[in-house]
Amino acid sequence: MNLAELETPCLVLDRAKMMKNVAALHARLQRLGVGLRPHGKTGKNIDSLRPTLAGQPGGITVSTLKEAEYYFGHGIRDIVYAVGIAPVKLDRVAGLIQKGARITVILDSVAQARAVAAKAREHGVTLPALIEIDSDGHRSGVEPGDPLLVDIGRILHAEKGTALAGVLTHAGASYDCKSVDAIRAMAQTERDGAVACAEALRRSGLPCPVVSVGSTPTAFFAEDLSGVTEVRAGVFLFFDLVMAGLGVCRPQDIAVSVLASIIGHQRRRGWAITDAGWMALSRDRGTASQSVDQGYGLVCDRAGGLLPGLVVQATNQEHGIVADRSGKPVDWAALPIGSAVRILPNHACATAAMFDRYHVTDGSTEVVDVWHRVNGW
Amino acid sequence: MNLAELETPCLVLDRAKMMKNVAALHARLQRLGVGLRPHGKTGKNIDSLRPTLAGQPGGITVSTLKEAEYYFGHGIRDIVYAVGIAPVKLDRVAGLIQKGARITVILDSVAQARAVAAKAREHGVTLPALIEIDSDGHRSGVEPGDPLLVDIGRILHAEKGTALAGVLTHAGASYDCKSVDAIRAMAQTERDGAVACAEALRRSGLPCPVVSVGSTPTAFFAEDLSGVTEVRAGVFLFFDLVMAGLGVCRPQDIAVSVLASIIGHQRRRGWAITDAGWMALSRDRGTASQSVDQGYGLVCDRAGGLLPGLVVQATNQEHGIVADRSGKPVDWAALPIGSAVRILPNHACATAAMFDRYHVTDGSTEVVDVWHRVNGW
Repeated sequence: MNLAELETPCLVLDRAKMMKNVAALHARLQRLGVGLRPHGKTGKNIDSLRPTLAGQPGGITVSTLKEAEYYFGHGIRDIVYAVGIAPVKLDRVAGLIQKGARITVILDSVAQARAVAAKAREHGVTLPALIEIDSDGHRSGVEPGDPLLVDIGRILHAEKGTALAGVLTHAGASYDCKSVDAIRAMAQTERDGAVACAEALRRSGLPCPVVSVGSTPTAFFAEDLSGVTEVRAGVFLFFDLVMAGLGVCRPQDIAVSVLASIIGHQRRRGWAITDAGWMALSRDRGTASQSVDQGYGLVCDRAGGLLPGLVVQATNQEHGIVADRSGKPVDWAALPIGSAVRILPNHACATAAMFDRYHVTDGSTEVVDVWHRVNGW
Repeated sequence: MNLAELETPCLVLDRAKMMKNVAALHARLQRLGVGLRPHGKTGKNIDSLRPTLAGQPGGITVSTLKEAEYYFGHGIRDIVYAVGIAPVKLDRVAGLIQKGARITVILDSVAQARAVAAKAREHGVTLPALIEIDSDGHRSGVEPGDPLLVDIGRILHAEKGTALAGVLTHAGASYDCKSVDAIRAMAQTERDGAVACAEALRRSGLPCPVVSVGSTPTAFFAEDLSGVTEVRAGVFLFFDLVMAGLGVCRPQDIAVSVLASIIGHQRRRGWAITDAGWMALSRDRGTASQSVDQGYGLVCDRAGGLLPGLVVQATNQEHGIVADRSGKPVDWAALPIGSAVRILPNHACATAAMFDRYHVTDGSTEVVDVWHRVNGW
């Protein structure tokens, strides 16, 4: 089957580009001497995750317990659930552990540590936990230097049912960096914060086997990961326009795109209308705060070649408005009614989440496979 | 089952509020003497659609052919697919017609009219079409006064296989109105544009049985719908913060909310962290351009009562950051780790689309039913 035969909108994954992206991160981390714990939240699919594990230790990261159950069902045992644990989810975590998974939760409070210990005892399992560190001020975690770190560590180490697995941080603020130098500095801060906390635990006589850091930007630009035991990253798998805006990739490296049909020419305004609205592209406007605002995405032809100047300027639920950045009308002859375009996303995780499957190509417009996603919770 | 037992994040629908919203629009349209053709794109579910049809002509609107197939499977025959038709979708439309559905497509070009006629002949069916009118300049459609209108009308009327069903417009720009007076004026413009086009077709000797207008804001504030045969609206079913910002409803009328757990206290910053990020709330920031920016949503307690001052200030994929608008720290004691909150959405269509089901309540925290959604295309 060819992309020309697919009903629109649908999600296209260029496996050839994906494999290059994976190889690029593997090479980078090999030079730094650290293994990858890939994040399954981007692909939400086993076929796209497997290549990221090649030559790596084998553990993964997930953002939902549904992902954890799915990947465990496909034979992956070592899983970090990297969202601060809610007590209401602990029965489900314990259920996975009883089936043979090693699920590590993360937390940043005494209340969570005690809830984990209580639930582990109730189920008769051991529930390993990482303490989340706030290395960049963007969200959750214990700040380096806060005595809370050792308080939580002591509970996890002492209580029956829990195990102190180490520390974990995520420099999500790297997405807002304005230069590669700023990302390099952020990577150093991320590493330093995690390692400082690991050392604080060890000075207090507590174990800290795992020192886990990562985000796609910091993973690509880190120069020193001494003391770090693993790097986590997700969006590198597909890349997107936010990553291109940060200088982590080029637009032509982006492996996912939304196939859309041209359904109208709004000649007075110079627009072409597509059937890929925000329901297909997502509402993510992550490039809006970057130096080049890519609207709701850049426009390619069906074969994936960028159409210079064209951008999805606005969306409604099932409509996208394609305009030329220059303000000139789009080239109607190049975009006839019924023709197809491919839209590169601002944020691959958000756009892919609007679909239940990938139509997989391999550098051409032939569809070589269909891969399903595990959406939801 | 009670909301307290549900794993988070999940989507809650208060049926009692929904029924009041439906009654409000029915009463409004009854005074204006026009029937409702509800839009199935908001609920994407038959149980929430049925009450909107009570006392109405019985036809519906959809935004995807998957919705059309689903609703037809639940006995609804008269369906307008209100996204400009892409030729690649016509086989699927013809298939529904062959099964007994009356599917009306919309279009705004000669190319589409000819494609519809050709496909109808190929399948031996009659494919009715409405001409889309651009009454507000926001997206698609033929402008009132453009001779293209009659050109398309003649093709639809003359060609074997098609039928000219009438005209349709959607004043989507009403979402950007800054006052109720502006919405009233927009409603008049929407009505006037559609009726003018209907009259232009009739003056040319063409039929125009249907004059279809609508958006939730214009449906609520229209004062004159003479010459209009039906009103379309969708988001009135649930309402949301964008509609509250427009003055169409109050926050306490909003029938859908996302149930979330408190998973962290970021004391240095004064935040509470929840497990409802943009994957649950959507990336929709529709209130950002309104006079009161509601962030990613307003925060209620588990019973649905608004917690004054609290707003979801930022989101990541599976994290929401709850802050007090005043800049003061949130009240930690009122939001203990593991407690639950409910988030009111900016845009009900976008937030509901992140879930595959509703947990239905009826004015209390007891879950009385589970309703499934038909997402995708």
